[in-house]
Amino acid sequence: MGDTLSGVGVSSGVGYAPALRLSRATPEPSADARHDGDADAEIRRAADAMEETARDLTARGERAGGAAREVLAAQALMARDPALADDVKRRIGEGATAARAVSEAMAVYRDMLAGAGDYLAARVADLDDVRDRIVARLLGVPVPGIPDSETPFVLVAADLAPADTALLDPERVVAFVTREGGPTSHTAILARSLGLPAVVACAGADGIVDGTPLLVDGVTGQVMAEPGEEQVADARATAAAREAAAARITGPGRTSDGHPVPLLANIGGPQDLPAALENGAEGVGLYRTEFLFLDRADAPGHDEQVAVYRTVLEAFPGGKVIVRTLDAGADKPLAFLPAPAAEPNPALGERGLRMLRRHPLTLEAQLAALAEAQRSTDAQAYVMAPMVTDVEDAEWFTAAAAKAGIEHAGIMVEVPAAALRARHLAGAADFFSIGTNDLTQYTCAADREVGGLSRFQDPWQPGVLELVAATAAAAGQAGRPCGVCGEAAADPVLACVLVGLGVTSLSMGATALPMVRAALARTSLAECREAARTAVDARTAEEAASRARGHLPGLADLGL
Amino acid sequence: MGDTLSGVGVSSGVGYAPALRLSRATPEPSADARHDGDADAEIRRAADAMEETARDLTARGERAGGAAREVLAAQALMARDPALADDVKRRIGEGATAARAVSEAMAVYRDMLAGAGDYLAARVADLDDVRDRIVARLLGVPVPGIPDSETPFVLVAADLAPADTALLDPERVVAFVTREGGPTSHTAILARSLGLPAVVACAGADGIVDGTPLLVDGVTGQVMAEPGEEQVADARATAAAREAAAARITGPGRTSDGHPVPLLANIGGPQDLPAALENGAEGVGLYRTEFLFLDRADAPGHDEQVAVYRTVLEAFPGGKVIVRTLDAGADKPLAFLPAPAAEPNPALGERGLRMLRRHPLTLEAQLAALAEAQRSTDAQAYVMAPMVTDVEDAEWFTAAAAKAGIEHAGIMVEVPAAALRARHLAGAADFFSIGTNDLTQYTCAADREVGGLSRFQDPWQPGVLELVAATAAAAGQAGRPCGVCGEAAADPVLACVLVGLGVTSLSMGATALPMVRAALARTSLAECREAARTAVDARTAEEAASRARGHLPGLADLGL
Repeated sequence: MGDTLSGVGVSSGVGYAPALRLSRATPEPSADARHDGDADAEIRRAADAMEETARDLTARGERAGGAAREVLAAQALMARDPALADDVKRRIGEGATAARAVSEAMAVYRDMLAGAGDYLAARVADLDDVRDRIVARLLGVPVPGIPDSETPFVLVAADLAPADTALLDPERVVAFVTREGGPTSHTAILARSLGLPAVVACAGADGIVDGTPLLVDGVTGQVMAEPGEEQVADARATAAAREAAAARITGPGRTSDGHPVPLLANIGGPQDLPAALENGAEGVGLYRTEFLFLDRADAPGHDEQVAVYRTVLEAFPGGKVIVRTLDAGADKPLAFLPAPAAEPNPALGERGLRMLRRHPLTLEAQLAALAEAQRSTDAQAYVMAPMVTDVEDAEWFTAAAAKAGIEHAGIMVEVPAAALRARHLAGAADFFSIGTNDLTQYTCAADREVGGLSRFQDPWQPGVLELVAATAAAAGQAGRPCGVCGEAAADPVLACVLVGLGVTSLSMGATALPMVRAALARTSLAECREAARTAVDARTAEEAASRARGHLPGLADLGL
Repeated sequence: MGDTLSGVGVSSGVGYAPALRLSRATPEPSADARHDGDADAEIRRAADAMEETARDLTARGERAGGAAREVLAAQALMARDPALADDVKRRIGEGATAARAVSEAMAVYRDMLAGAGDYLAARVADLDDVRDRIVARLLGVPVPGIPDSETPFVLVAADLAPADTALLDPERVVAFVTREGGPTSHTAILARSLGLPAVVACAGADGIVDGTPLLVDGVTGQVMAEPGEEQVADARATAAAREAAAARITGPGRTSDGHPVPLLANIGGPQDLPAALENGAEGVGLYRTEFLFLDRADAPGHDEQVAVYRTVLEAFPGGKVIVRTLDAGADKPLAFLPAPAAEPNPALGERGLRMLRRHPLTLEAQLAALAEAQRSTDAQAYVMAPMVTDVEDAEWFTAAAAKAGIEHAGIMVEVPAAALRARHLAGAADFFSIGTNDLTQYTCAADREVGGLSRFQDPWQPGVLELVAATAAAAGQAGRPCGVCGEAAADPVLACVLVGLGVTSLSMGATALPMVRAALARTSLAECREAARTAVDARTAEEAASRARGHLPGLADLGL
């Protein structure tokens, strides 16, 4: 039996397989690497490797689609840069090998980028990746990326970026372990959407050697190296019992004493409907429409939008479907909307409703399509705006919805100012939906993607719970529903606390629904309230979670 | 008399002079610009222009010092890039003029940067600036930048960046008018530190023609084009009367009924001490020590730090000096501390105390130097940490201060979570200092530098006032002082409201002290409290400010 490492478990289940590291390290060609004298042949080799790398990046982007396509296309552009080709040629002419020449020439770009200021680190990493791919090809070593394996493995990495995981084969990967990342990072969200166990912010991940058998527990956050057979069997039995216990509960969400808590699904489009229905979603709590707009040259037309919205609405006859209007900005740029000016901090920039207020016709067109889709189905279409900051924002948006003939217009509460002023916003919106991911990010001023800050990216942070309580209380006083559609709703323990804080519905990735349904079914509303009261009063996130667990005895059956 | 434009007044006073625009537009050489056939001569012309531009940028950086030096050095590096020179040479060889060749070659870089992702816009602007400088030289047109003028002028710009203002001659500029920027933008802070009137977020600024006489009122935010003589005289008389009224009040800060409110100065180093003393500062509320660390290859040594801290402490015998420990991070990188990994949003990254927790020896050295400086003076040294998020942060910092032998250790409250949990933090820190600039930025999730979001960058936002109230109340209950050291303290109306919310001291740029002292002297504590109560209950920032004014009748004498 080997060491046990600890991290943050972000997606339930247990995985067991040998470790394989996301390979990134390509050796640097040494400074005295000289070719054999045929400069022209060496120049051709370099040109071929650069072109093949560009083609490979483009092809990977095409296969992956989505946001990954853009990132990879930009990298292909770097590999095809004519100034780079000229510089490589010159260096080979002076005697360097193709690999060394590429490495040196790209170092010039790199220094320019790195020296040009503070905001370039992310692009330097993209450039390094292009260099490593070209150099690996020229040296005849493996190209960095997801390892090729015929057998299942646990993917171990410093961090997973969309480009790394674009071509991931979910049949081969049984779990993720990363050194960086928090509960709302790309890795965590991807793991939950694939239904894979994952442990992030695992400080010892760098020391894991390829081939070491790993037992990964996505609930406890423990990663055991070389476990005994019995340990693997125990962990699997616990996970299976948990799932079986969860699967026994069906029907609408409610507490053990019958307090109804509608359980809804977060979806990105019609492709997510089967999983939502299969897991018993009572409706859609968050339909992220930006996937319909991303990654295309023009905005989707009226008929296309109507057809897609109708498909989603028809899946829930008589049910509730909450459509979030386009959430774009500098961090999610669209080809057909001019990007906002230079934004050093896109998360604090003109995104969401701020962007729509600059482009009201885009919103108008989306609302018109949704209104038309609604008229031809039995579902209740609700619409909500992202990144609402103050009462004026809320009033502007609900007026636009009313003008389009949509009756139910609400707002996301994800900016701290909106939560703090919920008592005023409740008068200007039909419902609230709390986005705990961004609310946590802003309340703790901690970027969701920075691994070193995972302590602050925790929705158990008492300050965040306090804002949820204030929002739910204001909604309750005004007789408005208040849901949660952030990742917090998918944590069965936290889900009970949210209900205790006054939240009226929970929306999450579909695979999390059974466990949350089971947790609520084992817990009374009074227990939820007591757990909530004691969690809000805690000094730290850890204390909040452990106090809450103490008041939720029914969850022990579920292994929680 | 001409039009009157409206913006946000961010620095008091009145300025009157002809407009001069920050010139940025350099004509683009046309695609068919061909040289006369002597390619070698043209290549030499291009090389000379690139080298002269690089030298000019370096020289400007040297003269300016500080953060500007780094930015300008990076730009010089771009101009000297050998791959760029090769590309220019090739294009001239194909017949293009030097100007056209530079323009085209730099467009390749530009596309690479712009296409490489979302975070590069800021660097694209730097690159464009380098291109414009080289092309302007080659075309024989004025180099972009602060206009040369022998006579005073109002500087009009889209926005002012540190590089633009590095060489500003405060003798020639009488006011700033910008289209972008909020009350806490670089422009606003610079204007206040120079004591110049400024209007930001002025939508009509782009339409102002060079030479148009402008009357700029930094209190009302109005910019009048071609004012009549009488209007200029009136505005000047009002401003002069305001200043005279303010100047009549001296001595320690207190309300009209004698409630003491110590008025302190924000300083960046010993160079700011004369202005602080001249304006009657009772101590230092915020000593930003990062200026001692920025822009050098190694950390300042022990003796150097002791000497500088001693100079500051000695300026206030028996008074209070609050030293903020190093506030560095991806947005304020230091040469001798490894920058944190790629941060897409540096304002939400590993800055402030988060950075110091990774580099405890840097903090230890700073605290040791401060402790030694304190032992040899009569001032009371207080130390405080930036970017404290939770109780664990506060406890870690106060323990480090105690270990160094510094008795008074407090925290900045600038993260919403810290304000929300002030009741717990008050047990772990000797005092609070609210940083309203960052607190507003995070609470409203609105970057301080993005002009389009100025509505949200307003510390009058009721959500921000609510957090100030909660922080001050928690401090009061624990018997701890709670100051404000953000730009909000420099607004005389808001200063009264802050006192009404329970804030116990106010710290600001020295030039704002007389007006705030005068405002407090004309207002009772009960009026402050009533103004605060009604402002917190307002629906919008505008309503908060106008309600508060209604309860502060004494400020009318000051023209506020």
